[in-house]
Amino acid sequence: MAKTENSIRIPFDEMKSEFSRILLSIGFSEQKADKCAEIFTMNSLDGVNSHGINRFPRFVKNTLEGFVKPEAVPTILHRFGSLEQWDGNLGPGPLNATFATERAMELARENGIGMVTLANTNHWMRGGTYGWQAAKNGFVIICWTNTCPNMPAWGATDPRIGNNPFVIAVPYKNEAIVLDFAMSQYSYGKMESLNSEGSKLPYPGGFNKNGEITTDPGEILESWRVMPVGYWKGAGLSLLLDIVATILSGGLSTHQIHSCSSEYSVSQVFIAINLMHLHNFPAIDNSIHQIIEDLHKSSPETPSTKIRYPGEHVLQTRKSNMENGIHVSRDSWEKILRFRERKGGR
Amino acid sequence: MAKTENSIRIPFDEMKSEFSRILLSIGFSEQKADKCAEIFTMNSLDGVNSHGINRFPRFVKNTLEGFVKPEAVPTILHRFGSLEQWDGNLGPGPLNATFATERAMELARENGIGMVTLANTNHWMRGGTYGWQAAKNGFVIICWTNTCPNMPAWGATDPRIGNNPFVIAVPYKNEAIVLDFAMSQYSYGKMESLNSEGSKLPYPGGFNKNGEITTDPGEILESWRVMPVGYWKGAGLSLLLDIVATILSGGLSTHQIHSCSSEYSVSQVFIAINLMHLHNFPAIDNSIHQIIEDLHKSSPETPSTKIRYPGEHVLQTRKSNMENGIHVSRDSWEKILRFRERKGGR
Repeated sequence: MAKTENSIRIPFDEMKSEFSRILLSIGFSEQKADKCAEIFTMNSLDGVNSHGINRFPRFVKNTLEGFVKPEAVPTILHRFGSLEQWDGNLGPGPLNATFATERAMELARENGIGMVTLANTNHWMRGGTYGWQAAKNGFVIICWTNTCPNMPAWGATDPRIGNNPFVIAVPYKNEAIVLDFAMSQYSYGKMESLNSEGSKLPYPGGFNKNGEITTDPGEILESWRVMPVGYWKGAGLSLLLDIVATILSGGLSTHQIHSCSSEYSVSQVFIAINLMHLHNFPAIDNSIHQIIEDLHKSSPETPSTKIRYPGEHVLQTRKSNMENGIHVSRDSWEKILRFRERKGGR
Repeated sequence: MAKTENSIRIPFDEMKSEFSRILLSIGFSEQKADKCAEIFTMNSLDGVNSHGINRFPRFVKNTLEGFVKPEAVPTILHRFGSLEQWDGNLGPGPLNATFATERAMELARENGIGMVTLANTNHWMRGGTYGWQAAKNGFVIICWTNTCPNMPAWGATDPRIGNNPFVIAVPYKNEAIVLDFAMSQYSYGKMESLNSEGSKLPYPGGFNKNGEITTDPGEILESWRVMPVGYWKGAGLSLLLDIVATILSGGLSTHQIHSCSSEYSVSQVFIAINLMHLHNFPAIDNSIHQIIEDLHKSSPETPSTKIRYPGEHVLQTRKSNMENGIHVSRDSWEKILRFRERKGGR
């Protein structure tokens, strides 16, 4: 199995330390490098390499190209009551989003619910990061980002809407239930990886050049006609998420974020709700527990099918990767080491 | 065409007046009958007969059975800052939801954003009603309801999650862009109607008894295995919407709403945002206009395909139905008239 042979395990601290050293070499302060490295490493720790180690080189590239400003921090544009509008000043997306989540929680501490918007920010990497952040602190969070145009509208053939990842998270048993999904059925990364293995998608993921629904990732990569989740429904949700992110932040909308390779200056919304301020707060954890218990009682379609809540598998992945090292491909890791040597050699 | 022959057009006022008379006969006060009749008629006016005239008899039945309390009104359970939790007291769903939308807007007038939850309320009929209500008043609204268990979790065969309709709406050119969708790809009503015509679904809508994906509505009605939008993604969103509605309202969750025929005591969330309190308020309408203009520039897959935003077609349907009478089936209308006669004869 080429795939397994090529897979190695890197300890959390080692990966974080490599990321941090690279970030320091490209203009990040020690504190910002540390926090950013932590987020990328956590994403890989949780099994989301696509927004961890595999995405890190592009983040570095976008920083070197000037699209991500290492030392920029959000500045406030406007506040009113329980909402605040901030300018992300093209700072590092994960740091800006962490900040916005924290601010939304602070507003929710004061007012029960709080909303923070970011204009002019950068790719937040894995949306689930902010779901876990808020939920582990006892908050419900609803947040989303717009993206470059990477999906056709329903009935269209040219990409004009974004896949606009959307997150809802709730605290659960000192951990969290975190839903984090993009509006395209499969990511380009997933389709590329299956295509290179010669595998099909488990369910239809787009249209081929002839407008037929297909499970062949190669055909979809050729047509760029990825399938919105739920056909017209996900296409509609994508549009609305873009409109709302744009108007609440005063930032750019998907059609204004021209390039998908740099994809800078996106718009984001963070809504936090403080459960402690609800009359039924003491009953909430048990109430969620009952819902999950009922879910787990589902009849699986095959004896080996596990019925899980969003984020349930993450806890095991996290534990295993923390104990045994984070599963990454040898290629990805060598890319990180090479960058270090090149920079270190200057 | 049997379908066309059986279709008649009823003037708005005539339909509303019939609904109102029936509601008066089953315990609604004049004011509540009028408002409720208006909402049902508006739903049919907008072309949504499934939650207008076709649903009205079931609403009457549920009222007669005592599941809907005609004169009950919401009472406040708790308030803190920008959020309020209300008990719907099993009042009429559409009236409770209209009230909650109005309260959420009032909180947003004061604080920029406002959230109202309803425990112990009833089916709100068409979620879009509250989208239009808020957006026509200049607010962004995000609202949703849980439902009875009518869909299996992903990988499961027995229905334990709801289709939990979700609404996002924004003001646009004195009208609105309104997205209103359930988490199942097709409604049971749609599948029943296509099945009785002998038609297939345009896209796969569920699994048959053998666990295979199918476009045959009859097979899905037999298996009860409807497809969540976007497969595991919509199933996850359904679960999170239920959890959040349950814990924010303190009401029942899907697994506690046992019967799908009565389906009473559901939980709902309404989040309104006041655009007037944003720094970019003057630019918002134009910003949305640019997004819609870009959407409309999409290359359609066939020359006759219209690329539209959610709710775009509603304006034409509404205008046509207002001018020429509301399109309904003769059967549906006669059912309404018969009820009137029966009740009138008491």
